[in-house]
Amino acid sequence: MTNSIQNRIRELERRSPILTAEDDLDVFWEATLASYADKPLNGTRELVHTPMGGMRAYKSTYEGADDTPLHAWYLTPAAEPADGGKFPCVVHYHGYGGGKGMPEQFAHYILMGFAVLSVDVRGQGGETGSRLDQPYGAAKGWLTPGILDRETAYYRAITIDAIRAAEWAAAQPETDPDRVLLIGGSQGGGLALIVSALSGVPKAAVAHIPNMCQMDFGILNANSSLSEAAEFVSRHPGHLDAVLRTLSYFDNVNLAHRIRIPVMVSCGLKDLCCMPETVYAAYNRIVSDKEMRVYPFDGHWVSDGQNRLAMEFLARQAGLSS
Amino acid sequence: MTNSIQNRIRELERRSPILTAEDDLDVFWEATLASYADKPLNGTRELVHTPMGGMRAYKSTYEGADDTPLHAWYLTPAAEPADGGKFPCVVHYHGYGGGKGMPEQFAHYILMGFAVLSVDVRGQGGETGSRLDQPYGAAKGWLTPGILDRETAYYRAITIDAIRAAEWAAAQPETDPDRVLLIGGSQGGGLALIVSALSGVPKAAVAHIPNMCQMDFGILNANSSLSEAAEFVSRHPGHLDAVLRTLSYFDNVNLAHRIRIPVMVSCGLKDLCCMPETVYAAYNRIVSDKEMRVYPFDGHWVSDGQNRLAMEFLARQAGLSS
Amino acid sequence: MTNSIQNRIRELERRSPILTAEDDLDVFWEATLASYADKPLNGTRELVHTPMGGMRAYKSTYEGADDTPLHAWYLTPAAEPADGGKFPCVVHYHGYGGGKGMPEQFAHYILMGFAVLSVDVRGQGGETGSRLDQPYGAAKGWLTPGILDRETAYYRAITIDAIRAAEWAAAQPETDPDRVLLIGGSQGGGLALIVSALSGVPKAAVAHIPNMCQMDFGILNANSSLSEAAEFVSRHPGHLDAVLRTLSYFDNVNLAHRIRIPVMVSCGLKDLCCMPETVYAAYNRIVSDKEMRVYPFDGHWVSDGQNRLAMEFLARQAGLSS
Amino acid sequence: MTNSIQNRIRELERRSPILTAEDDLDVFWEATLASYADKPLNGTRELVHTPMGGMRAYKSTYEGADDTPLHAWYLTPAAEPADGGKFPCVVHYHGYGGGKGMPEQFAHYILMGFAVLSVDVRGQGGETGSRLDQPYGAAKGWLTPGILDRETAYYRAITIDAIRAAEWAAAQPETDPDRVLLIGGSQGGGLALIVSALSGVPKAAVAHIPNMCQMDFGILNANSSLSEAAEFVSRHPGHLDAVLRTLSYFDNVNLAHRIRIPVMVSCGLKDLCCMPETVYAAYNRIVSDKEMRVYPFDGHWVSDGQNRLAMEFLARQAGLSS
Amino acid sequence: MTNSIQNRIRELERRSPILTAEDDLDVFWEATLASYADKPLNGTRELVHTPMGGMRAYKSTYEGADDTPLHAWYLTPAAEPADGGKFPCVVHYHGYGGGKGMPEQFAHYILMGFAVLSVDVRGQGGETGSRLDQPYGAAKGWLTPGILDRETAYYRAITIDAIRAAEWAAAQPETDPDRVLLIGGSQGGGLALIVSALSGVPKAAVAHIPNMCQMDFGILNANSSLSEAAEFVSRHPGHLDAVLRTLSYFDNVNLAHRIRIPVMVSCGLKDLCCMPETVYAAYNRIVSDKEMRVYPFDGHWVSDGQNRLAMEFLARQAGLSS
Amino acid sequence: MTNSIQNRIRELERRSPILTAEDDLDVFWEATLASYADKPLNGTRELVHTPMGGMRAYKSTYEGADDTPLHAWYLTPAAEPADGGKFPCVVHYHGYGGGKGMPEQFAHYILMGFAVLSVDVRGQGGETGSRLDQPYGAAKGWLTPGILDRETAYYRAITIDAIRAAEWAAAQPETDPDRVLLIGGSQGGGLALIVSALSGVPKAAVAHIPNMCQMDFGILNANSSLSEAAEFVSRHPGHLDAVLRTLSYFDNVNLAHRIRIPVMVSCGLKDLCCMPETVYAAYNRIVSDKEMRVYPFDGHWVSDGQNRLAMEFLARQAGLSS
Repeated sequence: MTNSIQNRIRELERRSPILTAEDDLDVFWEATLASYADKPLNGTRELVHTPMGGMRAYKSTYEGADDTPLHAWYLTPAAEPADGGKFPCVVHYHGYGGGKGMPEQFAHYILMGFAVLSVDVRGQGGETGSRLDQPYGAAKGWLTPGILDRETAYYRAITIDAIRAAEWAAAQPETDPDRVLLIGGSQGGGLALIVSALSGVPKAAVAHIPNMCQMDFGILNANSSLSEAAEFVSRHPGHLDAVLRTLSYFDNVNLAHRIRIPVMVSCGLKDLCCMPETVYAAYNRIVSDKEMRVYPFDGHWVSDGQNRLAMEFLARQAGLSS
Repeated sequence: MTNSIQNRIRELERRSPILTAEDDLDVFWEATLASYADKPLNGTRELVHTPMGGMRAYKSTYEGADDTPLHAWYLTPAAEPADGGKFPCVVHYHGYGGGKGMPEQFAHYILMGFAVLSVDVRGQGGETGSRLDQPYGAAKGWLTPGILDRETAYYRAITIDAIRAAEWAAAQPETDPDRVLLIGGSQGGGLALIVSALSGVPKAAVAHIPNMCQMDFGILNANSSLSEAAEFVSRHPGHLDAVLRTLSYFDNVNLAHRIRIPVMVSCGLKDLCCMPETVYAAYNRIVSDKEMRVYPFDGHWVSDGQNRLAMEFLARQAGLSS
Repeated sequence: MTNSIQNRIRELERRSPILTAEDDLDVFWEATLASYADKPLNGTRELVHTPMGGMRAYKSTYEGADDTPLHAWYLTPAAEPADGGKFPCVVHYHGYGGGKGMPEQFAHYILMGFAVLSVDVRGQGGETGSRLDQPYGAAKGWLTPGILDRETAYYRAITIDAIRAAEWAAAQPETDPDRVLLIGGSQGGGLALIVSALSGVPKAAVAHIPNMCQMDFGILNANSSLSEAAEFVSRHPGHLDAVLRTLSYFDNVNLAHRIRIPVMVSCGLKDLCCMPETVYAAYNRIVSDKEMRVYPFDGHWVSDGQNRLAMEFLARQAGLSS
Repeated sequence: MTNSIQNRIRELERRSPILTAEDDLDVFWEATLASYADKPLNGTRELVHTPMGGMRAYKSTYEGADDTPLHAWYLTPAAEPADGGKFPCVVHYHGYGGGKGMPEQFAHYILMGFAVLSVDVRGQGGETGSRLDQPYGAAKGWLTPGILDRETAYYRAITIDAIRAAEWAAAQPETDPDRVLLIGGSQGGGLALIVSALSGVPKAAVAHIPNMCQMDFGILNANSSLSEAAEFVSRHPGHLDAVLRTLSYFDNVNLAHRIRIPVMVSCGLKDLCCMPETVYAAYNRIVSDKEMRVYPFDGHWVSDGQNRLAMEFLARQAGLSS
Repeated sequence: MTNSIQNRIRELERRSPILTAEDDLDVFWEATLASYADKPLNGTRELVHTPMGGMRAYKSTYEGADDTPLHAWYLTPAAEPADGGKFPCVVHYHGYGGGKGMPEQFAHYILMGFAVLSVDVRGQGGETGSRLDQPYGAAKGWLTPGILDRETAYYRAITIDAIRAAEWAAAQPETDPDRVLLIGGSQGGGLALIVSALSGVPKAAVAHIPNMCQMDFGILNANSSLSEAAEFVSRHPGHLDAVLRTLSYFDNVNLAHRIRIPVMVSCGLKDLCCMPETVYAAYNRIVSDKEMRVYPFDGHWVSDGQNRLAMEFLARQAGLSS
Repeated sequence: MTNSIQNRIRELERRSPILTAEDDLDVFWEATLASYADKPLNGTRELVHTPMGGMRAYKSTYEGADDTPLHAWYLTPAAEPADGGKFPCVVHYHGYGGGKGMPEQFAHYILMGFAVLSVDVRGQGGETGSRLDQPYGAAKGWLTPGILDRETAYYRAITIDAIRAAEWAAAQPETDPDRVLLIGGSQGGGLALIVSALSGVPKAAVAHIPNMCQMDFGILNANSSLSEAAEFVSRHPGHLDAVLRTLSYFDNVNLAHRIRIPVMVSCGLKDLCCMPETVYAAYNRIVSDKEMRVYPFDGHWVSDGQNRLAMEFLARQAGLSS
């Protein structure tokens, strides 16, 4: 016996991704990553007081795609690791428009025995500004400044920022560099996937309701930050191809086959922002260990239950008892 | 120099509450509280596994206004209190339609050195049902079943449930019964206030954007659960007086002068649900130590910054280093 | 020549229902109906004054699925039946959140020569409360309390209440028990269909824009009371199967083949609440005399014209001159 | 003890109407009414079949403000009046965009012993067209065609149509011409008031949530058909004074002091369409027997309870036992 | 490589129109056009002052489908044509509810060397009233009065008005009658297409996001003025066939194959009003020179870029240097 | 006789502005303007082809508040000025999120005999990017980057850009530097006012529905770009005073008394974005020749009629025959 919900999910599982990669996609990323390989992170950290005696909290910065100092919280348990060693570390990427948040929002990871690096995405709702030059007009929001060229695109900057966040997490003396794990939702999920595809640092990743997936579909149909790109093209119709081309370099549908680590992905069938069609398109391309958690009646949010599943997944991947 | 925002706040600070108390308000509560004074809580607790090694989590129940078992999380740090004594305990009441949540949502209190009791409000989004008889028709939602009489009113049941929650928290062996503190937002804030007014157990309280304040104003103007009462009266216009009368027994504007403990209250000037006019009406009646945190551009939500202020307030009141 | 509207209707007419019945569906209903077979209705009726001299109006109660007294209007013409016999009787079930209404709303049936029984659905907007125990938390609304088990489900209670309404109508001395007819819209239409499938009392039924049809589709796609079940599952994802299982016992798609009486069904192609896909799924399973009235541009409402068609249908089925 | 709701109502009761009448208001109406005094109604009526054996239904037309035949239902009980005399008659005016409806919608009046004349307002959702010439452009809707001049205004036409409806009702052989009563809601309520002010035919009137009251306030603040006039002025700003001037001749605030019959008026404090400020402005000008029914939480609708009160009022005024 | 947007456009390009023409479509139009062939335009024009010294502006009227004087601006450059001859002339039809606008809105055409005739559509937001008799009730708006019969339909009147506008433009002494071009958006685009199909006067046309295309699809799915027709049918379900039949005579899908001149058409893939399915259905029927400009992310508006393309198209078609 | 609309306008006319200026407001502007006094504009211009033979169009850039090249159209009639002299020049500032537009949108000014400079506001929907460093996080939109300090504020940059636009217009060889006039709506109206207050270049200004007026009121109440500042403060409550302080330096309420040229201002009583309370607050401070055009039923738009009034005002001020 089957029902309408099962039918819908099966349809998504069988969905063929539309690949939009340009021929030089690999070349682009090889060159881009190489150009940052030897660039120092120039990080800083400073212990700050919080009301939570059981947590040690550092305000920290590191340099991302340009000289912009990216702000982040680096948090550890106040007690030494149980086994006298180092802490596995969760790197957290926030959703569109948000920020690195408050240390207390990561208290559960501390109680699990993780260190945490929660980073700002540049220019958005945290403390971090941006030194990116804006070479052309833009739609309201962060997505379209520089979108006419992959080299000036905001997505390029935040992808590099996110890769370097994982490196900065691994570089902390309290962190076990072999147990850096990624997590994020929406924009943060998209970043968790693309970093998983492009960096050797992370060992597992959770991508809740990720964006940056099958963006040619999303720009046409979704109610997400891609609507900024759509608005930009509405205003400058001649730039349609350039915009789609730029997006293709940062689209997980074109990159997900590179992922070599275990990933947990989630989506909601009622999500009009990061639509299940787009999430599955990228997910169906992943060839490593993977699990999809699909919520038939959820929109663009991450439920308590999914958060708990992610905690258990992270504990398993880090070898913590869960 | 003054500005439009300061003018608006001053207006609220000077607002005279409209008292709607019936003559027998005190008699009602004396009798009601007396009838529960000797009723045993018949509580249960069971240790459950979570991924958080630093927290001990108990699924717990206790009996509230009738035989309904109220579900709650009782959570403590895994380590003993620093000073070999007992933990101060935070009692958490959730917002309308919510539930007691997941243990991880209270991890920050654990890292502060608190025990936590997070309770379901009956019949709402948690696990707890309700054995309340519904004697008459109702509008959609929890507010109006039984509203024609103060004795059958839902507000009566949840107020008693909430008072007994504080008692159950105090009764746990890990809890220091002299340091039980209350916190909640919206419905949870309203309950924190009314329990502060009616019970001797709590020693301090945080009421974020509380409901149950100046409800004759709210039922006319607000976009809150009181709209259910408004809908009920629309359908049964002859019951207007009975409904207003019932609400008056549970209105913090009529009870706030009884509060004898320090309280922190918050409100947002753009909150159309728990409107600042109503929050200030009750707040202006409080004669104990009090502080108001007003957010000029916030609607019906509790910001990260306000949460941090509440943590610091609770730490101070519990004698924890904050 | 065909057009877009005809094409859409043809598609619906050819739609294959997805059957979701559990193996023990028939066993369940046999046992359930048997348990009520000998339970007395314990009805009451009391003549009340109205401004309508041509109508006799009784406030009435009867016992439904438990000891709850269900309130109802029993109405007859003030004059004796034309032929000295008894009145055919229309049983009216109201829509979600409504109530039995006012006697004047059924005046047209009286002028046709019908008696009328208009019943409250328990706990909703009429006078009738509910003694159903709520064993678990719930989403806002009436649908989800008890939904984890078919035995405690609200749908079970109201289905039995509705069956017994027909019996109570037939038991009135003024009613011709061989001419009890059912009518309702939305929830009321769903009840009219399920009573037609499960009870031998009614002789014909009108189901306007009925709910309780192909509910696995509706919970995923519709903007109806099923969104409460969806919200419940969003909050408690582990209960998805239990909820779908419970709904299947009350889904007309699984029961409509049992109907042995003439039925008129209506639907609107723009109805986002009781979607035409769901209405046709159940309708296509009916094997008795049936007629569908489809309104291409109507949403979730019953038009004046459709009401008139229903009056004419009822008159024909009752042998009244229409 | 007072509360927020009582305070709001008191404020409205004390509201001073702003009179906007031009000096020649009385002259205008004297001339206008005189010009129709001898104009024959040229009515028609034809018995039609309905499924309601207890009602006699006539499709009827009469001539209104020009040669347009206005369509109407004239309905009577099938039985002779109890006392061998004639029927009192209710004249019904519908709301904006509606129509005269179906005979069954007036069945309750028939059961009370009334005859009914339910009339179309010209050009709207019923069968009645309009021969009014449109001399100038217009906003979407019926309100603004001809609005630049009181002589071509739509309000003039429908006011005369409504006055003549009362005359046509009185002219039917089954009607007792001394017991013609008016009822309507919204636009229908506005018409009931203005006919009460201008015609000697009606003996009582019910104006539910009436429009055509303090229209200078409504055009600025309300979400009603006056927004069409607002849109017209937005497009043609030079016509502001002409529009306000035209409206003033049909504003019940300027005419209500002429009413000499008992009236029942209703309003909802949450009505954003026919706002309570406007309803009270006109109501406060009435000097005959009057009663206001105010619903604190009702928007722009007429509740079942208010309908019942209106039935009882009409019965009393007609000398029927209620 | 293909993407989701290209796939969507290809789907539309391959869309088969559903023809809804009645057998006598050609007969109808032959007779209709013949009846106006010799009817004089009875035009007027009057020079008016504007602040634009470089433009000559005439307020003008001509007679359309009946005796209604249609208001229009006739505008020319103040200077003589460069070549001493006459001006090519652009005829502009406005969108639904609009008007002929202000002379300054056509200044760019003047600077291009065009004369302009911008006409009111009768009864809408301009100065032009209407003498059309309304024989039956209607939904709010201009579309449904008279819709039960092709002879009384509003679409018939405005189509003839629009044809005669082109004739009036051609009849001006400053106009080169061999270079009359049409332009309009939405309703104006629909009129540009239908005039192109029915009149020999125009030599090219631009139809931005045109309505009056595949109206059986639009009435079911679109959020356009056709929703008035849908509302009319909802209220009078028996008139469904009559309404669809009337619309079919004015549906460009049934007429577009007659077009013999070059046309530019535009549409937006996100246009919920004049949906791309309907625009392509008519466009795919055109056999003359044609170009489609499709905007993947545009809703129901005409972008600056598309306006420029239209200017260039008109210049080319008129033999002006562009 | 008075009416509700007149009463509302009188209230606004009597509204006392709340001055929020810091003590060093004048010092700030003196220093700021001095620092740009000798900075070269480094402008460029390039003739481009358009389809409008009667216009000469130059793509132009000049340097604004930093090295960012601001893009602008400089447009003149193709013919020499009638009197052999120079053209008066209109400088156009666009609304929030817009751009400098297309030359054809200014064709009416060309036909009047004006030259036009239409400039991009940096970073928004035109071609112009921005080299402004973003030193801190921000809310979505252009308003809040840099808002913590008057020196880094976006408003500072665009105000200087706008002042220098007037200078660039005056510097063109075709422009009569004594007849530079400003116009804009919303953001563009705010800029027109502030440039009028701070620069000696313009000789008259039109500010339609201007923003940047009484911003402490707007941030609390309006639905404008100030909601970005409100969102920023919601997220960073500690920055409230800094934000209000920064805004005060760019608030026309604090600067309007400096205006020495004739101004026309407009507002709509239904404008929820640039609310009439804020527009009048600044307007009431102007002591030069001024006229207010108030539209009782207009929201946040500029009507055709108001555009025409502005054209006539500009013609008068420039000594053109209007």
